[in-house]
Amino acid sequence: MLLSDKAIRSLIREGKLIIDPLYEDSIRENGVDMRIGPEIAFPIVRGEVMDPTKDDPSLHFTVRRFSDEGIIIPGNTSILLVTEEYIKMPDDVAALCGLRSSIARWGFIAAPTLVDAGFEGQLTIEVMWTRPAPVRLYRGIRFLHVVFFRTEGKVERPYSGAYQGQRGVTLPKRLEK
Amino acid sequence: MLLSDKAIRSLIREGKLIIDPLYEDSIRENGVDMRIGPEIAFPIVRGEVMDPTKDDPSLHFTVRRFSDEGIIIPGNTSILLVTEEYIKMPDDVAALCGLRSSIARWGFIAAPTLVDAGFEGQLTIEVMWTRPAPVRLYRGIRFLHVVFFRTEGKVERPYSGAYQGQRGVTLPKRLEK
Amino acid sequence: MLLSDKAIRSLIREGKLIIDPLYEDSIRENGVDMRIGPEIAFPIVRGEVMDPTKDDPSLHFTVRRFSDEGIIIPGNTSILLVTEEYIKMPDDVAALCGLRSSIARWGFIAAPTLVDAGFEGQLTIEVMWTRPAPVRLYRGIRFLHVVFFRTEGKVERPYSGAYQGQRGVTLPKRLEK
Repeated sequence: MLLSDKAIRSLIREGKLIIDPLYEDSIRENGVDMRIGPEIAFPIVRGEVMDPTKDDPSLHFTVRRFSDEGIIIPGNTSILLVTEEYIKMPDDVAALCGLRSSIARWGFIAAPTLVDAGFEGQLTIEVMWTRPAPVRLYRGIRFLHVVFFRTEGKVERPYSGAYQGQRGVTLPKRLEK
Repeated sequence: MLLSDKAIRSLIREGKLIIDPLYEDSIRENGVDMRIGPEIAFPIVRGEVMDPTKDDPSLHFTVRRFSDEGIIIPGNTSILLVTEEYIKMPDDVAALCGLRSSIARWGFIAAPTLVDAGFEGQLTIEVMWTRPAPVRLYRGIRFLHVVFFRTEGKVERPYSGAYQGQRGVTLPKRLEK
Repeated sequence: MLLSDKAIRSLIREGKLIIDPLYEDSIRENGVDMRIGPEIAFPIVRGEVMDPTKDDPSLHFTVRRFSDEGIIIPGNTSILLVTEEYIKMPDDVAALCGLRSSIARWGFIAAPTLVDAGFEGQLTIEVMWTRPAPVRLYRGIRFLHVVFFRTEGKVERPYSGAYQGQRGVTLPKRLEK
């Protein structure tokens, strides 16, 4: 089942689902909104061919902190954003994240991201700005909408992968062939 | 639970879910297809830096109506489409929209959009055309696939936000910091 | 409900869900990872306006096979990938596919794709590489994450559409107005 506002609140009250910080307007009809956090990763575009199975990821990103004036995103650029919120998932609930409708309509696109049962950390989300002109973004904008699904039975091996407990914008691992 | 064709039909028969117009081929295996509606919003690309927390959205879009000859989308351009269908959601069902596989394979991408329990209106969807060459689109093309999820318990505060009852392609609201 | 690792394993054991080949690391917390298969379709970009309701799709794609050295994807290009795995869905379960978090973070975006109850075949997925520089991809990379949802009651008319039994990268059908 997809969790309603009521079901989300009771999971939080029981301490099974942790979202920190939780704002007044975080819990919505049937999901939770999350805010742009303190860091952003821009792509460093080099001349040669990238190889995600070999390259050191840090060669391909530069990470910066938001200032109060926000940060300018160049046209047609994909970035990594991180949520302000740290989330801790129970082992019988998974979640699906997508951009809020308002920010998508402005011209942002993000691949839907699944959050596994048992995961904890801030969420790193790849977002593409699809217009040619630059745009200014700010820390604190509600950008992500997260919906929660009860799993059919507890997950036998909840998440314990490489991104467990991640804080701040987290670069990708190398891909395995 | 994700609603099957049978469950969708019974919700419609009971008047709990309204999809208008509903075509012969709208209801599919476990979801509903929706068609491109009468209007399309193109981005107006200006030289200066956009600021979605300050700018008047109407400065950044131009809305046009489809003619029978269709409309040409320039290469690498994200647009706003609206569904022909007006949908009215019950307060214990939410929906998730994504592009149909056929239109995605041609080179279109859309962020997944969640439709909250209690929402009503035509759906405005951001779609990116990812090829450099122009493409012609037409009103009436089945482009969107919508799947429905029962919520765990009725939603206490069904949708009543800024886009309630929206008709025609609806531009984004300013984002709040 | 969203199926847990345990529920997925029992569906496979009962022969209701077939995923072939199934690797040691395919089944995850609450979903299944799938690998890049043998073929890739690149867009052929022509000068004139594309018309997906009239054009022969094969005029707009060129299909190639991966070699052991991988294949270079030009910057800002959307491609069609196919999964190594052939999947056969039961008629009371649907699935939702999205890119794995690691590959999304490198700069790939894919529209979420729904797999209907009763579908069988290899999955063709449109993926956009959003960086200006070229990137090398390889057959066998785990790129797709698939989660499964039980439908509310069996689907009365399981999938039997144009892509049933598809193998290899499958180009789109013409769109109907």
